[in-house]
Formats: sequence, structure tokens, C-alpha cells
Amino acid sequence: MITLQDCRALDARDALAPLRQRFEPSSTGAIHLDGNSVGPMPRDVPERLQRLLCEGWRDARRRGWSRFDWLDKPRLLGRDLAPLIGAGPDDVVFADSTSINVFKLLAHAWRQRPERPVVVVERGNFPSDLYAAQGLAHLVNGVTGMNGAPGGVELRWIDAPEDLAAALDTRVGVVLLSHVDYRSSRRWNMAATNALAHAAGARVLWDLSHAAGAIHIALRDDDADYAVGCGYKYLCGGPGAPAWLYVHPKWRDERMARAEGPATDSAPSDVTGWPAVPGWMGHADTFGFDPLYTPHPGVQRHLSGTPPVIALEAMSGAAAVWREVDAQALGAKHRSLSELAVALVAQRGAPFGMTLGSPAAYDERGGHISFSHEGAGRIVEALVERGVVTSFRHPNAIRFGLSPLALSHEDLWWAVDRLHDVLASGLWREERFAKSAV
Amino acid sequence: MITLQDCRALDARDALAPLRQRFEPSSTGAIHLDGNSVGPMPRDVPERLQRLLCEGWRDARRRGWSRFDWLDKPRLLGRDLAPLIGAGPDDVVFADSTSINVFKLLAHAWRQRPERPVVVVERGNFPSDLYAAQGLAHLVNGVTGMNGAPGGVELRWIDAPEDLAAALDTRVGVVLLSHVDYRSSRRWNMAATNALAHAAGARVLWDLSHAAGAIHIALRDDDADYAVGCGYKYLCGGPGAPAWLYVHPKWRDERMARAEGPATDSAPSDVTGWPAVPGWMGHADTFGFDPLYTPHPGVQRHLSGTPPVIALEAMSGAAAVWREVDAQALGAKHRSLSELAVALVAQRGAPFGMTLGSPAAYDERGGHISFSHEGAGRIVEALVERGVVTSFRHPNAIRFGLSPLALSHEDLWWAVDRLHDVLASGLWREERFAKSAV
Repeated sequence: MITLQDCRALDARDALAPLRQRFEPSSTGAIHLDGNSVGPMPRDVPERLQRLLCEGWRDARRRGWSRFDWLDKPRLLGRDLAPLIGAGPDDVVFADSTSINVFKLLAHAWRQRPERPVVVVERGNFPSDLYAAQGLAHLVNGVTGMNGAPGGVELRWIDAPEDLAAALDTRVGVVLLSHVDYRSSRRWNMAATNALAHAAGARVLWDLSHAAGAIHIALRDDDADYAVGCGYKYLCGGPGAPAWLYVHPKWRDERMARAEGPATDSAPSDVTGWPAVPGWMGHADTFGFDPLYTPHPGVQRHLSGTPPVIALEAMSGAAAVWREVDAQALGAKHRSLSELAVALVAQRGAPFGMTLGSPAAYDERGGHISFSHEGAGRIVEALVERGVVTSFRHPNAIRFGLSPLALSHEDLWWAVDRLHDVLASGLWREERFAKSAV
Repeated sequence: MITLQDCRALDARDALAPLRQRFEPSSTGAIHLDGNSVGPMPRDVPERLQRLLCEGWRDARRRGWSRFDWLDKPRLLGRDLAPLIGAGPDDVVFADSTSINVFKLLAHAWRQRPERPVVVVERGNFPSDLYAAQGLAHLVNGVTGMNGAPGGVELRWIDAPEDLAAALDTRVGVVLLSHVDYRSSRRWNMAATNALAHAAGARVLWDLSHAAGAIHIALRDDDADYAVGCGYKYLCGGPGAPAWLYVHPKWRDERMARAEGPATDSAPSDVTGWPAVPGWMGHADTFGFDPLYTPHPGVQRHLSGTPPVIALEAMSGAAAVWREVDAQALGAKHRSLSELAVALVAQRGAPFGMTLGSPAAYDERGGHISFSHEGAGRIVEALVERGVVTSFRHPNAIRFGLSPLALSHEDLWWAVDRLHDVLASGLWREERFAKSAV
């Protein structure tokens, strides 16, 4: 039996506990287990934005571009994030949305090796990632019937992780996967999957939206080729925050060995190193205003338009916290929370029909835990009324999204205590919770 | 001779004068003629963001997606902008950056008619737009040598507006142009250019970054096919604000008549109506989580990833002002300011070598006015010291970017008065202004 005292004891031993003060708790007193949707707000964000608005927008106006770090923010925030995901300091930039970044890096990675036209995709991946892949296929294949031909794109669908090995052959250029399933939280083994793909000559593009900022990630050590991720979940960048992208240094300045013919205005001799959506922020000389594109060295070439200054300033609040966090310690804290939550729900929710929908082994789970119950939708709504915010996914999943920097073990005790109340009292069966549960 | 009294008389007759109070003046007292770079801040933005941070991020967290209009903001802000650019209420959405939107709509428009592989581009266009076009060409042509073949992309470069007619033939699918030149402010005649292109069977994609929110624009009346634009210049959305995109209703739900073959998982029978970068926000049923993409009806299909909620909230301050402005009145105010500025500089700057770099006729200019002087860089820096913020473009351009909602005619009087001082005193020749002038 786990007790409240046990939870408090875990908090007393938590090396990251002081960082909880850097986040602003909800004024309603609610316990938020929705870090898989919108992470908590760093306490200094309002003041940061106020300063940006007054000193930057109101007073500096166009001079802000040179007086402040606005144009360099995508790179600086990438440097701040890098240690947390096991990347090198020059491997990461913040840009655009996750969907756009999936398109950009998938197109880029595919483009490097036209003799490998197949992109492997998982049917259960987050749909927006799949849409980007479908869009690339249709854009490139056009009406030329090149589906599957060299230079074209062919999508090869797999239904489960165990299908991957059989899907790999010499025609596969890129495998597109979400590290963590957005419903079940099932986690791919990143090192093993990279090794499997690499053995077949394929590269892997990972979407880390439900992993980065929660579980321990080691992109370099695991030999990850490409990755993208969301900024507003466990990274705490605020609703709709800019996303990030990562390119392994071995691919970063890659160019294809053979030339494509004589260079002209519209056809440089070698464009394989190009990003998919070139823009002025990814040009080698942004303010040279050359009509012809030349890629910036390194990962910065994948920047396209003007950085979203206000949104990146909001993200800076979280970045200041990342700089103080050790990646191993962050992963350990998340593991401790995740295993406690599973145990508490087993103890106090299982008698009322709650089962674990996620894998039982921590190393096979991502940022959230998915529990199953026939009344999932209603239970989630009833929990909101009792001051615990989780999230529902059709048909029967209750997700606990665990933000390791802002949550305590005691928070989980009280959250599950209220869950117990909602289940034991039958409160969740009330009709008023039905509407939002469909 | 224009006098200060004349300027004040113009202000007294200015129907939009009350709206100046909706913008926050610089605390330094500087006169900002840099609306071509970062427009003025609506006064209520700090309070709006504060509310979003507290009620939305801190307290609502994931519930914000359903409790507030976060997911609908791209469409709602598009509706607010529409009248100002002569678009219909369902023609416009806010999304991504201008560079990304150029890529998206250019790829989409090109994709509709594979038998017209040529994209006409102007060498003097803003480079980021040109990079997007080059990126599309290289992505699509791949290593298949399809440059110019049906299904491929061929860029055809023109050097000046008078070259356009000769560049149009039956192989041209799309013409990509900036309505207003970012250096000289030269403006294309939109109606005449659309008519010229349409007569040749081509469509036009306009970048209105240096026009929207300043000059009078009538996209529907001028029969514009596609347009994109920046949110942070004359639209006053804040540094790096989200951009917008417009699609004429006649193309909005366009599908190609002929089928492309049997539909399969990875090859639906007809994908010509698809956006270039499909994402969940542009899916017909965002929260249905279907692994296969189906375009949302209308312009919303061009949305890709999660909306940038914080940045869109900052934009909402300006949108509240747009709702109170008549597009004709806005254009008239801008014209009045622009013509006054030209006359004042002719009167007080010309004796010291200032010449007009922009076209003399107002209808041939965009949001800013470009003046020429051999000491342009130093003059711009000296003006900053005197409390007037303009901008410099190599080698000899001083740009006055005129935000019609926030500037008065008297502001222009004092700005040119200080320009006169800087020129007449020879202040600008001082060595300390040289460094920033290169």
C-alpha cells in the first residue's frame, strides 16, 4: 500500500523539487495532468512578454531586429534545448509548427537519395505527420505516375512496430515515426530502431512531441538522423508555441556526390543539400538579398521565414529552466512520477475498473500514461469538476500527461484520491458529464 | 510652400484621426516611419496577452483548446482582415510565415495544372519569395531532369514589369510577384497584371507584404487568384507575427476534372485540390484522427499545424482596429500621408540632395516611400539620434514606411523638419554614423 507519506518522502528526495517554484500554479488550485496537451507556464513569462512588448515592439520597432536577439532566437533556443534531448549544441533550431517541420525534414531526407523512393509510415502515427507525408508524395509524384519510381515518393504503410523489419529493403529512404504514440503512449526503442533502419540503409525521422521534456532522450547516442517536436507540451512554450527540428551532424551539410548538370539561374549544379522550403532566414547571407538561394551552413538552413519573435520570447521562459536541468535527472523524475501514478491507479482505481492502457514497463512508455475505462469521457469531465485535469481520447482512454518540472509526487496522490472519489461515488455516471464525453 | 499649419489642417479633416489613440506611442517620443518593418503596437495588446497567459495558459491549459477560440483564430482573424484587402469573408486565413505561405500557395497553384510547368518570377522580388520558388523547383524536379517537362517546374526569370507580357505563353501556370517592391516601393498594377496573365491562361500569386494595411487593395474586384502577406508590417501584428494567405473562391475547392487512377491508401484518385503541406488543422475532420488526408472545404485546407495561439492573440489587437476601418478611408489616409511626405521632402530635403527613389505617382507606390541620397545610411542613423526612425537599404535608399492608422500629418512635418536639420547642419557626415551605414 502506497501512502500519502510515501509520496511526500519521494518529494523530499526529489532533486528537481526546487524548480517547481519556477512554474505558475493554476489560480483555481487544479492539479494539471495535461502536460501532453499544454505544459505549465513558467512564472516569468508574463514579465518577459511585457518587456518585449514595451521595449521591443512599442519602443524599438524596426530597430529591435538589430538591438535584440530576435533573429538569433531560433538558434539560441535550439542550443538551450539540445542537452535535454541529447543533441549537440548546433543540431537544433526552433521554427514553424511540428507539421511543417515534418514536411520539411521528410522532404529533405527523401530528396537526398532519389534511388530510395519509399517512405515507411505507421498507420497509427499522429495523423498530421501522415498528412505531411501524403502531401509530399502527391506534390512530388504529381500527375507523372512516378509513385514508386526513382525520383518519386512511395508511401509504405506498417500497422505495428513488429512490421518494421519486414518493410525495410533497399528502396526505403526514410522511416517516419512518432517516438511515443499519442494515444497509448507506447514508445519505440529509439536506439534499436535506428540500428535496424540503418542496417537496411534507411534513415529515420522521429517526431518527439510526446517525449521531449518528459522522458530521457539521447539523440546523438542513439544515432538519430532527424527529429522534430512540439514546443507547447512538455517543453512548456505556451499554447501553439513554435516547434523545433534536429539534424544529425553527419547529414547536416550533406551534398550528393554526383553533379546534376551545369549550374544556371534556376538549376544550380547541386541542390541535394537544400532544405525543402528555402527562405531568407536559412540563406548563407540573409541580408545580402541575393536572388539566388545558397544554403546556410548547418541546421540553420532549415529556417524559412521571419522568426515568430513574441512566441519565441514566451518559449524563453522555459529555456531558462532547461539550462538548469540535467537530462538524466529530468528523466529520472519523470520515471518516478510515472511509476507512482501507475501504482496509485492500480491501488485505488483498479477496483473500479481502471486498467493500464499503456505498456507496463516504464521504458516502453512516453510522457503520458493512458488508462482505460468504459466511462473514460465522463470520468475525465467529472475529474475536471473535482479539480484534476486529464484528457480523453476516444473511445476509452484517460491520459495523465506528466510534466516532470512542475509536478510533485504528492500532486499525484491527490489527483488519484479524487479519481477514487469520482469512481467510488459513481459521480461520473451523472448525465451532465455525458455531453463532453462523446 | 507647405506649412505646419497646413499639416494640422489635414489632421483636422482626417476621419481616421481618432484611431491613432488605439496605438501606443513610443515612450521615447520618437516618430516611427518604420511601418514597413514593424508596425505600431495597438494599445490593448499587453492586456490581451496578460489575460491569455493567466486565463488561458496558466489556468485553462489543455481546456483552452475548447473553451476559447484558439483553434478558430486563423479563420476569425482572416475574416477581420478580409474587408481591408477587398477579399470575401471566407477567402483568408492566418498561418505560418510569409515564406512558408509563398511555398504553400505556389506549390498548390502550380500543382493544379501540370501541363503548365513554368513559374514566372521577377529577379527583384523579395529574395525569400524567390527562394521558395527555387526550393519548389528543386524539390519537384528532383534528379529526374524534369525541369520544364509537364509535371516538372521551370522558373522563368523576368527583370522588369515590362518583360512580363513577353514571358507569358501557354506553358506558364503561375506568375509570382510582390505587389510592391521592398526597396523602391514600385507597385504593380494589380488589375491590369491579373488581366494580362489571365489572358494567357496563367494565374498570379501576389505577395502583399508591403501593401496590405497601407494602400487600398481590392483582391476580388481585381480578380486576384492567390495572395499572401506579412502580419507584422502595416498590419501591426507584432514582431514576427503570423502571416496570412488568400485564395479566390473560384479556385478554392478546385479539383482536376480527370481522375488519376484508382484510389488507394497512398494514392487517392484526385489530389489536385490538396494543399501543398496538408496538416491536421486543414483536414475536413481535425479531431477524427483519420490516417488518410481529406481536405477541409475552402481556404482552411491550407492550414497545416497547430495555430500559434499567443502570436495570434497579439494580432487580435490590430484586428479589433481593422473592424472599425473602411478600406477606402484607409487608402485615402495613406495617400494623403504619402503625398505629403513626398512634397515635404521635396521642399526641405531636395536642396540638400534628397531625391525621390520611388515612382512619383501615388498609384505606382506601395506602403513606403524610398528617397535616395549618397549618405543614406548615415542619414538614417543621424535621424534615429534625432528621434526619427526610418530605414536604410543598400546602397542609397532611405525608406519612410507610413502606418496610416498611427501617423498624423503633423508627425510627418516634424520628421522632415528633423531631416532638414540633419542635412542642413551636416550632422550626418559625422564619423560615428558611418559604422551602421555600411
